[in-house]
Amino acid sequence: MVQIVKTISEVRDIVKAWKRAGHQVGLVPTMGYLHEGHQSLMTAAKSENEKVVVSVFVNPMQFGPTEDLASYPKDLDKDRQLCQQAGADLIFHPDAAEMYSADFCSFVDMTGLTEELCGRSRPIHFRGVCTVVSKLFNIVQPDKAYFGQKDAQQLAVIRRMVRDLNIDVEIIGCPIIREHDGLAKSSRNSYLNREQRQAALCLYRAIKLSQQLMQDGERDCQRISAQMTALIEQEPLAKIDYISIVDADTLSPVEGINRSVLCAIAVYIGKTRLIDNIVFDI
Amino acid sequence: MVQIVKTISEVRDIVKAWKRAGHQVGLVPTMGYLHEGHQSLMTAAKSENEKVVVSVFVNPMQFGPTEDLASYPKDLDKDRQLCQQAGADLIFHPDAAEMYSADFCSFVDMTGLTEELCGRSRPIHFRGVCTVVSKLFNIVQPDKAYFGQKDAQQLAVIRRMVRDLNIDVEIIGCPIIREHDGLAKSSRNSYLNREQRQAALCLYRAIKLSQQLMQDGERDCQRISAQMTALIEQEPLAKIDYISIVDADTLSPVEGINRSVLCAIAVYIGKTRLIDNIVFDI
Repeated sequence: MVQIVKTISEVRDIVKAWKRAGHQVGLVPTMGYLHEGHQSLMTAAKSENEKVVVSVFVNPMQFGPTEDLASYPKDLDKDRQLCQQAGADLIFHPDAAEMYSADFCSFVDMTGLTEELCGRSRPIHFRGVCTVVSKLFNIVQPDKAYFGQKDAQQLAVIRRMVRDLNIDVEIIGCPIIREHDGLAKSSRNSYLNREQRQAALCLYRAIKLSQQLMQDGERDCQRISAQMTALIEQEPLAKIDYISIVDADTLSPVEGINRSVLCAIAVYIGKTRLIDNIVFDI
Repeated sequence: MVQIVKTISEVRDIVKAWKRAGHQVGLVPTMGYLHEGHQSLMTAAKSENEKVVVSVFVNPMQFGPTEDLASYPKDLDKDRQLCQQAGADLIFHPDAAEMYSADFCSFVDMTGLTEELCGRSRPIHFRGVCTVVSKLFNIVQPDKAYFGQKDAQQLAVIRRMVRDLNIDVEIIGCPIIREHDGLAKSSRNSYLNREQRQAALCLYRAIKLSQQLMQDGERDCQRISAQMTALIEQEPLAKIDYISIVDADTLSPVEGINRSVLCAIAVYIGKTRLIDNIVFDI
């Protein structure tokens, strides 16, 4: 069964031995409670690297004070099985004190990209993401790192951080993996009861609607988001956080679709905040 | 003569070839206009590594809007000679556009340590320092990096950043190098006219006074700084920015000296801001 290590020095020693042996190393950073979305990242990583490290760490720094840090789902035994099946070579599973000393005070952050979309309702989220991903990159020193397109803003922020700070790692974005009925796979789907699970389909329906409108030739962002809003508002259990159509790289709002754009939505189903998105490549 | 490269990809290629050949690499980050202080860093680096990279980059991000970015002294030919004499193997001398793209938006920073001492009068300085040093570490990926104890707060901030973000580099602090009369070597000493150069000696006299008081058994920080203040105020061309006695690691103020403390001062001589310090190891 795939090995689990809990300390920074252990994972460093193992990875350095791999590198000395000439192996390429892929990193899949996760918060655990793994699903087929994570598995697709591991599979991609294994196909492009001899060795794959999966980090399982629920990063307290990226949760706001009213968010679901304490209740975030955990199942390390199942995570280990899924890592094993996907061919991962090592699980890095530190506790919070290993990653953050009592007098920890440094951070990595950015302006602009982090302030739109999820940044509006989660103001400290991306500082936490940038900081922990920087730490994981420095600890593991992977050749490539794999992130899901489902967290589209996170992927754009990490790509920008890597570019700006000259971090020597290649970032690979992997497609959204969906349930049979279209709901994007997410560890947070486990929070949904049966009724909410049904209601959550409105996110995928809205994404499909935007795709249909694009195919029909619509290029006006306001008209597209108005129709998506109307569709989601038909669902009584849903409350829209945002529906945004933005430049795919800078995440700044666009009016007409004349370049690659990201159409991203965040919707509360009960207390559970779900996200979904689609990229229109022009 | 030691080679100068201006692009990130060139320095990366050269250093990676060195590493493949099994060489240890030391980095000496500088803003150029090198003096014997920098030379002592290069000499230390050369004694501990097969290869030494000196970066020469006046980092705009660490200068405030009213500071001396435009007038900061430059002499690349002399820098190259000093690097050659000290046995450096490569000068990395990027222009600002190579380091900061037009849409650059990421940064590295910290709370606490950056807010005391120089951080009070230079509020964005250490964000610029942390960001550019992170970039240099990611570009060069040195085994060890060398910084002067003269910039004591910078050294403490970089040590903390490296620890917090798990950056895989060993930070080496090197002693202050002084002129024959005691003035700490600094590129900014070139701003001083003859009269100011004489007045600037008050910094060293104040540092010596604190050392004498310590040797005489004084442990009360307020009494020590009061005497240092009185000494510097005798010099009409001097204007004190701060005189601080702080914990050597956390840089937080202390009242009595019962652990390792940093006694640090910043004084304007005319428009030129000079710093000096001494560490009392208890």
